[in-house]
Amino acid sequence: MTDLASRLEGVVGSKGIRRDGEVDLLDPGWHPDNLRARLLVAPASTEEVAEVVRIVAEAGASLVPQGGRTGLVGGARTREDEVVLSTHRLDRILRLDPIERVAVVEAGVTLEALQRAAAEHGLEPGIDLAARGTATIGGMVSTNAGGILAFRNGVMRHRVLGLEAILPDGSRLGDLTRIVKNTTGYDVKQLLIGAEGTLGCVTRIAVRLDPTPRARVTALYGLPSTAAALDLLRRAFGDGRLDLRAAEVMWAEFARATAAANGIADPAIDLSHPVHLLLEAGGAEEAPLQAAFEDLYTGHLEEGLEVGGVIAHSERQRDDIWRLREDTGAIYRLYPAAPSYDVSVPATEIEDWLARFAEDLEGHDPGLGFYAFGHLGDGNLHVILKRAGPLAEAEEAAIDDLVYRDLGRLGGAFSAEHGIGSKRRAAFAVHADPGKAAMVRLLKASLDPDGVMNPGKIV
Amino acid sequence: MTDLASRLEGVVGSKGIRRDGEVDLLDPGWHPDNLRARLLVAPASTEEVAEVVRIVAEAGASLVPQGGRTGLVGGARTREDEVVLSTHRLDRILRLDPIERVAVVEAGVTLEALQRAAAEHGLEPGIDLAARGTATIGGMVSTNAGGILAFRNGVMRHRVLGLEAILPDGSRLGDLTRIVKNTTGYDVKQLLIGAEGTLGCVTRIAVRLDPTPRARVTALYGLPSTAAALDLLRRAFGDGRLDLRAAEVMWAEFARATAAANGIADPAIDLSHPVHLLLEAGGAEEAPLQAAFEDLYTGHLEEGLEVGGVIAHSERQRDDIWRLREDTGAIYRLYPAAPSYDVSVPATEIEDWLARFAEDLEGHDPGLGFYAFGHLGDGNLHVILKRAGPLAEAEEAAIDDLVYRDLGRLGGAFSAEHGIGSKRRAAFAVHADPGKAAMVRLLKASLDPDGVMNPGKIV
Repeated sequence: MTDLASRLEGVVGSKGIRRDGEVDLLDPGWHPDNLRARLLVAPASTEEVAEVVRIVAEAGASLVPQGGRTGLVGGARTREDEVVLSTHRLDRILRLDPIERVAVVEAGVTLEALQRAAAEHGLEPGIDLAARGTATIGGMVSTNAGGILAFRNGVMRHRVLGLEAILPDGSRLGDLTRIVKNTTGYDVKQLLIGAEGTLGCVTRIAVRLDPTPRARVTALYGLPSTAAALDLLRRAFGDGRLDLRAAEVMWAEFARATAAANGIADPAIDLSHPVHLLLEAGGAEEAPLQAAFEDLYTGHLEEGLEVGGVIAHSERQRDDIWRLREDTGAIYRLYPAAPSYDVSVPATEIEDWLARFAEDLEGHDPGLGFYAFGHLGDGNLHVILKRAGPLAEAEEAAIDDLVYRDLGRLGGAFSAEHGIGSKRRAAFAVHADPGKAAMVRLLKASLDPDGVMNPGKIV
Repeated sequence: MTDLASRLEGVVGSKGIRRDGEVDLLDPGWHPDNLRARLLVAPASTEEVAEVVRIVAEAGASLVPQGGRTGLVGGARTREDEVVLSTHRLDRILRLDPIERVAVVEAGVTLEALQRAAAEHGLEPGIDLAARGTATIGGMVSTNAGGILAFRNGVMRHRVLGLEAILPDGSRLGDLTRIVKNTTGYDVKQLLIGAEGTLGCVTRIAVRLDPTPRARVTALYGLPSTAAALDLLRRAFGDGRLDLRAAEVMWAEFARATAAANGIADPAIDLSHPVHLLLEAGGAEEAPLQAAFEDLYTGHLEEGLEVGGVIAHSERQRDDIWRLREDTGAIYRLYPAAPSYDVSVPATEIEDWLARFAEDLEGHDPGLGFYAFGHLGDGNLHVILKRAGPLAEAEEAAIDDLVYRDLGRLGGAFSAEHGIGSKRRAAFAVHADPGKAAMVRLLKASLDPDGVMNPGKIV
């Protein structure tokens, strides 16, 4: 290890290396095992990344790429004998072109840094998530991040126009195009997107930017049922005036818990309904958006549905509404390390799926409840059990089965936006399509035969 | 071959097989070699496709999947001893859900059939191209089709939510999800998208649908230069009233040639300018779109730019304008088999690239001109030389080099929406990024080690 560290220091200099106790001074991020490794190397250029990969491969060690360490499935966990490749020195925005509406960034640039730079030109990266201040673009590519705007703009995969990466043998994939049409052979960069660092290290990314609308209006509806929430969302999609930018759902207990944790007591924010739907729309002016949101409300009333609602009339109220949805940390403070799930369910199946899961969970363990919330616009539901974790292995497998058993048949996915990492490997082995799983294993074996890159993740 | 034919007939029945002279009764489509094969098999289900692949692989023969045979780069060419797998009996729309806004179709459904079925619900597949009546969804997935709407909606890859395919060993990839967020391991279906049938046969596809705007307005501008066209397009993107649905460009000679071929003599359609820009926008009503298009015109006038323009005031006029752009056949009647190119150039590079290419071509062969047209919104330019083809091999390589030499460095692509097929294999070997080319070759060898699927294409 000492010899390896010296060789790596020869490439990245003393600023780019941390050993043993120095590693412990860093924030491990979401998973405590992220920084068990005793050696961290931080290259400052693509060439240095390539050198690092070659040296680590030659030494027979393995390399775990890390961005903001905000991943939720242990995709960046390390063992003591592994080497962390941190992208924190790859933090330059290399190009931000308002005419092409494309940014080219190094992997370690945070989402927020890119959002700020793009905002100076009235543009945005078209992807947004709660960890924006820490999550890096490289990490978001490697996990194919989703978030709030995905129902409108697609996921990270749909925002990436080009990519540069260092492959497990130290060679360079140079596909940093800035155009959307490209049929020059298999689109191999798609394998790097969502590979969680197991097929190489992403170094540079060309990201598509979109114009930010001038006006924005946020509303929170209270509804009697999931069906009523889906119905309201359908009306919103069908309203020509509303360009929706968020369609977030919270079932009652989740909203009440995050409201309590944040001391949100605004009487206009009525959390007495069974389901709450947060809609946000953008446009040239506020007035037509507000009118459309009001029409959604009266439309539901006229159909005899119980409905409550508030249109945020200040930035403060908007922040409160968003904090209700985004402060998932409040739940984990109630139930430390609570078992959680992140699934995709097609819109027409959500209601039945939730009812079936609630019944099955009740059958499995009467009294064990759950919090549910997520992105209604794309069917991405988050479920957190009301129990401190972790679960024993057998019970984990049993509850996994309750959550995942019919998602494949329904056209959904057992991991929506968090990935597989180490946490969902067992689920992958059981619940992935067998044809897909075989192909994933074959690809890993073909593209990283010596297992240099992030071993033990995904497969 | 006779034995193989009998075995395949045992799977697909007599309706599903054509031998020798029976094959010649079919339309070979764009490339005369598409139907040189003496055996064509047309399975009617995924299970039959799997059986066919297994039997052909076992016989040591090779299989060429074919949809509408509209591909322009010889991706569906066959040798006499190959077997064509035609998807024409896989023609069912299995699901079309206005709530999920997703269609699930078999591979042989044509784009136009899907467009018609979606239109009944006020929806559209969000991708459109001139060959819509013949091109199949399976073929469009396999070539990662682009077309007119790509600058707005992305290419076929961005419209596919799920996919089922039969792999070269006859096994099934069952990834027919109907959701956008999916992080369950490498997204292997991305390899099938754009593989031109070399990694398996796509059997079913889940395609995202979008609402069709109620109103549509089409305008044709005449402009003094490429710079002025790009400038007008930038203003159009920045105008909050215009949701652009087409941004097509024709340099003067192309528009005049297609106008002459189609007898278009409408005096309102003035083709005397150096560059013509076709814009189409959608919205709730026509009036604001027309006003915005008029403002673009007066805005250019006020800057002292020469500009002409017409807003289509009848369906007939709109059809004429579109025929100017889409009747590329008119060019090939003037110069049969003329050498043609299909490249992506980032917006900020288009003007210089065109000037540089024109100069280099003049240097190579004084007097040899070219037609240029394409999709200005995404930088996809089509270039057709004013010379009947095919070229001798050495000259082809020399002109390829003039067209392709700097596209990689500029962040563009040497094939935008047509693919590699057999026509661009030599260009792939020379002009693809070496890291990407190596990965493509490794993937083909790993996933189709016996070369069953469409050999001799791409790599």
